Amino acid sequence: MKQKIKNALISVSDKTELTPILKILKKFNIKILSSGGTYKSIKKSGYDCLEISEYTGFKEMLDGRVKTLHPKIHAGILHDRSNRKHKSEMNKEKFPSIDLIVVNFYPFQKTVTNSKSQRKIIESIDIGGPAMVRAAAKNFKNVTIITDKNDYKDLINEIKKNKGKTTLKFREIMSSKAFGLTAYYDAMVAAWFNQNLKVKFPQRKIIFGKKLQNLRYGENPHQQSSIYSTNFNDNEIGLKKISGKDLSYNNYNDIFSGLDILSSIKKTPTTVIIKHANPCGVSSNKSSMISFKNAFASDPLSAFGGIVACNFKINKAIAYEIDKTFFEVILATSFDVNALRILKRKKNLRIIDISNFKETSNSSIKLFNGSFLLQDKDNIIFNKKNLKFVTKNKPSKKEIEEIKFAFNICKFVKSNAIVLTNNFSTIGIGAGQPSRLDSCKIATQKAKLFQPNKLKNAIAASDAFFPFADGIKTLIKSGVKTIVQPGGSIRDKEVVEAANKANIKMILTGTRHFNH
Amino acid sequence: MKQKIKNALISVSDKTELTPILKILKKFNIKILSSGGTYKSIKKSGYDCLEISEYTGFKEMLDGRVKTLHPKIHAGILHDRSNRKHKSEMNKEKFPSIDLIVVNFYPFQKTVTNSKSQRKIIESIDIGGPAMVRAAAKNFKNVTIITDKNDYKDLINEIKKNKGKTTLKFREIMSSKAFGLTAYYDAMVAAWFNQNLKVKFPQRKIIFGKKLQNLRYGENPHQQSSIYSTNFNDNEIGLKKISGKDLSYNNYNDIFSGLDILSSIKKTPTTVIIKHANPCGVSSNKSSMISFKNAFASDPLSAFGGIVACNFKINKAIAYEIDKTFFEVILATSFDVNALRILKRKKNLRIIDISNFKETSNSSIKLFNGSFLLQDKDNIIFNKKNLKFVTKNKPSKKEIEEIKFAFNICKFVKSNAIVLTNNFSTIGIGAGQPSRLDSCKIATQKAKLFQPNKLKNAIAASDAFFPFADGIKTLIKSGVKTIVQPGGSIRDKEVVEAANKANIKMILTGTRHFNH
Repeated sequence: MKQKIKNALISVSDKTELTPILKILKKFNIKILSSGGTYKSIKKSGYDCLEISEYTGFKEMLDGRVKTLHPKIHAGILHDRSNRKHKSEMNKEKFPSIDLIVVNFYPFQKTVTNSKSQRKIIESIDIGGPAMVRAAAKNFKNVTIITDKNDYKDLINEIKKNKGKTTLKFREIMSSKAFGLTAYYDAMVAAWFNQNLKVKFPQRKIIFGKKLQNLRYGENPHQQSSIYSTNFNDNEIGLKKISGKDLSYNNYNDIFSGLDILSSIKKTPTTVIIKHANPCGVSSNKSSMISFKNAFASDPLSAFGGIVACNFKINKAIAYEIDKTFFEVILATSFDVNALRILKRKKNLRIIDISNFKETSNSSIKLFNGSFLLQDKDNIIFNKKNLKFVTKNKPSKKEIEEIKFAFNICKFVKSNAIVLTNNFSTIGIGAGQPSRLDSCKIATQKAKLFQPNKLKNAIAASDAFFPFADGIKTLIKSGVKTIVQPGGSIRDKEVVEAANKANIKMILTGTRHFNH
Repeated sequence: MKQKIKNALISVSDKTELTPILKILKKFNIKILSSGGTYKSIKKSGYDCLEISEYTGFKEMLDGRVKTLHPKIHAGILHDRSNRKHKSEMNKEKFPSIDLIVVNFYPFQKTVTNSKSQRKIIESIDIGGPAMVRAAAKNFKNVTIITDKNDYKDLINEIKKNKGKTTLKFREIMSSKAFGLTAYYDAMVAAWFNQNLKVKFPQRKIIFGKKLQNLRYGENPHQQSSIYSTNFNDNEIGLKKISGKDLSYNNYNDIFSGLDILSSIKKTPTTVIIKHANPCGVSSNKSSMISFKNAFASDPLSAFGGIVACNFKINKAIAYEIDKTFFEVILATSFDVNALRILKRKKNLRIIDISNFKETSNSSIKLFNGSFLLQDKDNIIFNKKNLKFVTKNKPSKKEIEEIKFAFNICKFVKSNAIVLTNNFSTIGIGAGQPSRLDSCKIATQKAKLFQPNKLKNAIAASDAFFPFADGIKTLIKSGVKTIVQPGGSIRDKEVVEAANKANIKMILTGTRHFNH
């Protein structure tokens, strides 16, 4: 049902773009209530406006903490226009109806982002605004609630088209957005409290997202999809596109895998190549060029059509090297002008600057049907103090650095995972198999196919213990000389014996890294 | 800082277990404000209590829609007790302070679960309650807010211990819970609106969870974890444990994979065996026993330690069969008494009744750092009308049913996925490889190892097109006679030619099923 607007209440912290609304309200003789800065701004624009305190007869108090929390305002919003009892109560109290609310909140998220003062942050939690928004949104049968500047245009068109009225459908849609906003706002406030209190698993966990973009489609063309930001400051996720087509769902998914790995390796120049969300090549090297070449050499066939993530500047020479293969996305901390010129020749290639990307989140979530699993991110590799050198042969201090590299990469490969490395570069990755032996076979087959010479003296990392000795025998046979694994199997003894027999080094970490 | 409580406001929809609170408030001479049902209940228990309308001097109106939305209440909560200006304003208005709020909301979620009346559901959206809760939670420096019956005991101890006062720490924790609740509540309301409006990707997407249980640990022992319910009715996720240890993170993760597959196959008795979140055996058969045996035969090595999900009743004979192997979890729609007796002998085996499980969610989410990807679930297999029979040899109608079975299972295997089936049972699964050829090799190697005789005339399903003919040649060589795949490669012609040359059947579906 169309509903005539007689009175509107406007209270906004962002005062821009109000004039077209004031104009249309005036045109249809709609009275405006307001207070504080919004009141002044409306008057300044030359429109009539009544102060809320004058309207309620109650002077605002407590530095504005209490002004709209008044029966005359809330009854004006909440009464059912088709209910006789409500109408007679309203008449008795001489409360007019308030039919349009335009509100945006104190920007809590901005305060959190910009201030470290707890007092200021708490002060910026809006109480009166959400109360009005919720009241209006509940009573959408009668009231129009606008909470987003992007809806001003639609509101104006709606009032114009319906001659001072709005349609039920419009009001319902605006209400859905209003409750989305109040939920989002309080989810941020709750997250801030939990952060301060170091509560990681609150009784009620709310994940809030603001839409950044609709994607062309999801993982497959018949699935719709959007990407959301869960940051306090709304829309920064630290990916700046310099060139190329829009990112797809699968691009983002691969990028996330790539950035996750990259964030775990701080200093050395490192290249990560991702295909189907699994790494197919990772290499760290003082030389950026060698890091790219070695990452690529790990599985040049699978790298085709993958994404490349680098924690270094792409120069001209590396750009030429990258240009030889078809990749979907290149991510790097920076690109020199000549490199960009080369890479931009491929119009579709997405080039992304990740210099603003920061690893912040400390938890992961798995949603299924009516539930979700929340857990800490797996942020540990191993504690050097807890390493057990269980074979006669022990690694040197220097070797332990590469053992750490191999075990770290293994953490990011879908379980069961086996990763073979040589000189801080993967040479074979066995991913996602239900049996560890199968992952051993896949990893060694890859290495044999592409870089058989590097298998000699290679390091193998396993994300969980070896239930039998068969897996490590496969590794040893291929040339592996060092194996790092969590340990903890009832057959550890048997496994260590096999390692000793082959005269290789085995290190137990005590930390498992399943990743599904 | 400890804060003395002078006045308390109690307004609860669940009136049980209030008496101990009333007792302690009385002991410390704390005055109680209340209204409606809570007021009556307090008086009936024999305690003093002042009606809110009497307190404010404003008669509640609009069937209770407006009663606490009053300056005297909100200023009483919101004023800063250490601020002179606030204090003098409060004195001037003769507004006492309200220092403790005990509120629980109209049970919106229950109304949604139990009623189909839009009017009733909207009526149950609480406006006054959340406004008070948010005001009190904001002003935790001065005010104690209790929103959960489970916190009554702590409140009582706190007041007892501190002689009528509460500590800042306690108030802060209660505030964090309060904002968690208001966010959760509005997230549900927003979800209900979006559901009605068929908005799948709202501008603000809020995922709300109520904690069901802390888990022993997450995917790995060094990760903490909890499971949350995202249902409107709080805590039903449809898994009823009959026997065995608590479920672990990895158990849940595997169970989710198993139920997802099971939900996609409606009628025929089906067994799904999951290991590391991937299926290692799936079989549909009129005979439940054969369905279990065939699912197990698909990869008996990997099945060890896996989870078994069945859409049928487990009888004694099947229980004996299951009992021969070590599984972590058995899920079934029911268990007969004798079957339970057999299965329960293994004390650790988790036995789960899934008769109440319902597939409801229609979207999936991937959270990463400051963002998440939201997409429709992949709920399509293929449209029979769109199938293209591209080889000289065409499948019969009956064969199309098994082609559908194979292609459906493929959808649930991590990409790149190749699934080999024979008689509605998987015989080889190649999962999670960056190259399709590798997945073909893994799938055929599995089948050769465990059931080579079933490779003859087998069906192969691929989740995405074959970029080259090498993969299908591997399949054909192993004995596969029918291949189903989306098609769409620039080399489709070459691929079809290879199929024709080998005299096999190839069907293109037009639907891709990446799953990462």
